[in-house]
Amino acid sequence: MSDSLKVGLLGAGVVGSQVARILAEQSGELEARVGRRLELVGVGVRDLTKERPGIDPALLTDDLESVVDRSSVVIEVMGGMEPAGALVRRALSRGSSVVTANKALLAEHLAEFSILADDNNADLYFEAAVAGAIPIVRPLRESLVGDEVNSVMGIVNGTTNYILDKMVTSGLEFDEALRQAQGLGYAEADPTADVGGHDAAAKAAILAGLAFHSDVKGSQVYCEGITEITKQDIQSAKAMNCTVKLLAVARTNGDQVAVKVHPAMVPFTHPLASVSGAYNAVFVTSREAGELMFLGPGAGGAPTASAVMGDVVTVARHIVRGGRTTSSSSYRQRQVSDIGDTRTRYFISLEVEDRPGILAKCAAVFASHNVSVQTVQQSYLEGLERRDGFSARLGFMTHEAVESDLAAVVSELKAADFVGPNVRFMRIEGS
Amino acid sequence: MSDSLKVGLLGAGVVGSQVARILAEQSGELEARVGRRLELVGVGVRDLTKERPGIDPALLTDDLESVVDRSSVVIEVMGGMEPAGALVRRALSRGSSVVTANKALLAEHLAEFSILADDNNADLYFEAAVAGAIPIVRPLRESLVGDEVNSVMGIVNGTTNYILDKMVTSGLEFDEALRQAQGLGYAEADPTADVGGHDAAAKAAILAGLAFHSDVKGSQVYCEGITEITKQDIQSAKAMNCTVKLLAVARTNGDQVAVKVHPAMVPFTHPLASVSGAYNAVFVTSREAGELMFLGPGAGGAPTASAVMGDVVTVARHIVRGGRTTSSSSYRQRQVSDIGDTRTRYFISLEVEDRPGILAKCAAVFASHNVSVQTVQQSYLEGLERRDGFSARLGFMTHEAVESDLAAVVSELKAADFVGPNVRFMRIEGS
Repeated sequence: MSDSLKVGLLGAGVVGSQVARILAEQSGELEARVGRRLELVGVGVRDLTKERPGIDPALLTDDLESVVDRSSVVIEVMGGMEPAGALVRRALSRGSSVVTANKALLAEHLAEFSILADDNNADLYFEAAVAGAIPIVRPLRESLVGDEVNSVMGIVNGTTNYILDKMVTSGLEFDEALRQAQGLGYAEADPTADVGGHDAAAKAAILAGLAFHSDVKGSQVYCEGITEITKQDIQSAKAMNCTVKLLAVARTNGDQVAVKVHPAMVPFTHPLASVSGAYNAVFVTSREAGELMFLGPGAGGAPTASAVMGDVVTVARHIVRGGRTTSSSSYRQRQVSDIGDTRTRYFISLEVEDRPGILAKCAAVFASHNVSVQTVQQSYLEGLERRDGFSARLGFMTHEAVESDLAAVVSELKAADFVGPNVRFMRIEGS
Repeated sequence: MSDSLKVGLLGAGVVGSQVARILAEQSGELEARVGRRLELVGVGVRDLTKERPGIDPALLTDDLESVVDRSSVVIEVMGGMEPAGALVRRALSRGSSVVTANKALLAEHLAEFSILADDNNADLYFEAAVAGAIPIVRPLRESLVGDEVNSVMGIVNGTTNYILDKMVTSGLEFDEALRQAQGLGYAEADPTADVGGHDAAAKAAILAGLAFHSDVKGSQVYCEGITEITKQDIQSAKAMNCTVKLLAVARTNGDQVAVKVHPAMVPFTHPLASVSGAYNAVFVTSREAGELMFLGPGAGGAPTASAVMGDVVTVARHIVRGGRTTSSSSYRQRQVSDIGDTRTRYFISLEVEDRPGILAKCAAVFASHNVSVQTVQQSYLEGLERRDGFSARLGFMTHEAVESDLAAVVSELKAADFVGPNVRFMRIEGS
């Protein structure tokens, strides 16, 4: 066998430490698969004083650039925008291949990095950046590249899926479910990135870019988290045979593409409805293939490291035996739709006085904004729910409608004197 | 743009005609993705007199070798062992890349073809050969190549899944369900390859080879079809909260690998249990990633063509922009276990006289062959089921046991005078 292949690791946290472990434990297997020994030449960390169990102290350095400069394959699992971005640029510019799990960075710079990779004949792989161990980047980049993707819909954040699951199965309010998730380590002390939907939005941008051969940035993704979801929303969904999931959605919308993250009602019969706990899943529809679903652990050190190592072996093989995968494919440049121009089905719940004529008045509001109602369900309010003369609840499920029309309906209903102040609406996906 | 890239198509049946359609309909998109125009230079068919709607008659030829010799990318979707095998060898030897959907051919010659591809610096891609449109070959070849796969378990034959589904939901016997499937076009007039498990066995060999970096041939796969499954087996499974699926299983077995196709009881709670109709699904467990599942349409012209076209764009990009994927990775050469040496859990149903001491006698038989019983369920036979004094049915679920030990239990029970002649057993997977 010839010389070893130099591998540099940036970051030694939850994922990085697992990557280092696998590189050490599986070195014989990896060498057989690549055709050359993978040699870890350095582990770049920002804080040299921290304990890094399992990592040879001689490899640790806070000179991150030196790790890049000594490596043919650079694994970036440090996260954050900088210095990660500068280090990835530095590696690609030198013609080194980069494997990264950094979704926030890619959500802003994927198109730029892809061109840089192609210009320098380097590979850029990032399977671990979306949905952890689930192979979804490669299927979109390669398996479906001869097909036309229509939509990608994913549960791509395990924290919010765990919290919503708890709300559905245990009838908890959001705050209680969040506290439980934090207690079990499923949610961070500052849960904003997860529960605000920002983590999912970064992933949605990456998925949309790959699926539609366009440059979609995280900042262009409409993003609504789960902090406002109430126990009553969950109950309303159940009454409609639906569960509630935080979805990342990317879908063709005429010549444009709708890319959005929001809680949605999902029918129990849809495969995404039964994805529970910290699992992730991505549901893809395409013109020729039809419906595909990918399911697996969406986070965690070892699963994410599995995805990283699959990429490392792939780019290492390219270096050893020749070859490279094209990174850039945003030739189509589809525009991202304004949220008001997107279309889906909706559920609206409102409290009304229980007297003749009210339903007709409500229905007229929907009609006046071109929103077609599919079903209406009436229930009676009990005890404390009953106030100010509003004694009944109406639940409307619409046919597909334009979001701005729906917003007009909601705003007119909120202002109507025959409707109580508690007007709720939710998007319905997967029906 | 430079010259076009020459593509040759071998076969113009259900899949080939869809491939030809996509090449024509999507030529602009495909050119943008590849960076060069894909030009279909010939469509090789065995019978020139057949109508081929949608295919330019000028492209049709029965000179199959000339199609190969004029192409940089050869798409083989004609099926069968020969002349397909000779044509694939011819293409690879010339350094042309091959995309094939031919599972029977690959099940015998994958290792040989892979070496030939590597020796001639050509690509060999075959996503469509297993589970239709579902990306499973690429995930195993690349995404999981830095991990250690423990098991691959798949519903990879839509015909048998449809038939078993019918037996479960409508209470039909096998013959009736098969006739219905034939009437709807889900089963062929000669259904042997499907219902005998041979189609699934070819796919199991390919999956096992990829997952375990070994050369596994279809002829080495233990294969048992669904023709002997009865309505009563389905009912027994239901009583144990299980459904019945034809599974292709590849699993580490000590230093060896167990590769087998057989009907199995699958707990309702397992994700594979709810894969219905003509859908396929593959469930993978690995050391680092944990559990992954891939779900989608397993057959049909357009879905299979989607997988073929993903491969075509990938190999075409390699030709245009440089690069290639390593095909051969059977360095590990794990042996395939004899079925008697494999291990799983089992269900045994038998008819007995309803008198004290019988259960103890049965249990002693299990114990004498080192098979540990987990649960026993007793039910009473009614009406016609009741004969020769055998009035009760015992259902035993075992812990994991060695297949040869289980076979000894079954054979001893069959010979026992306190057990009726109707002794049934089924393997349990996914628990």
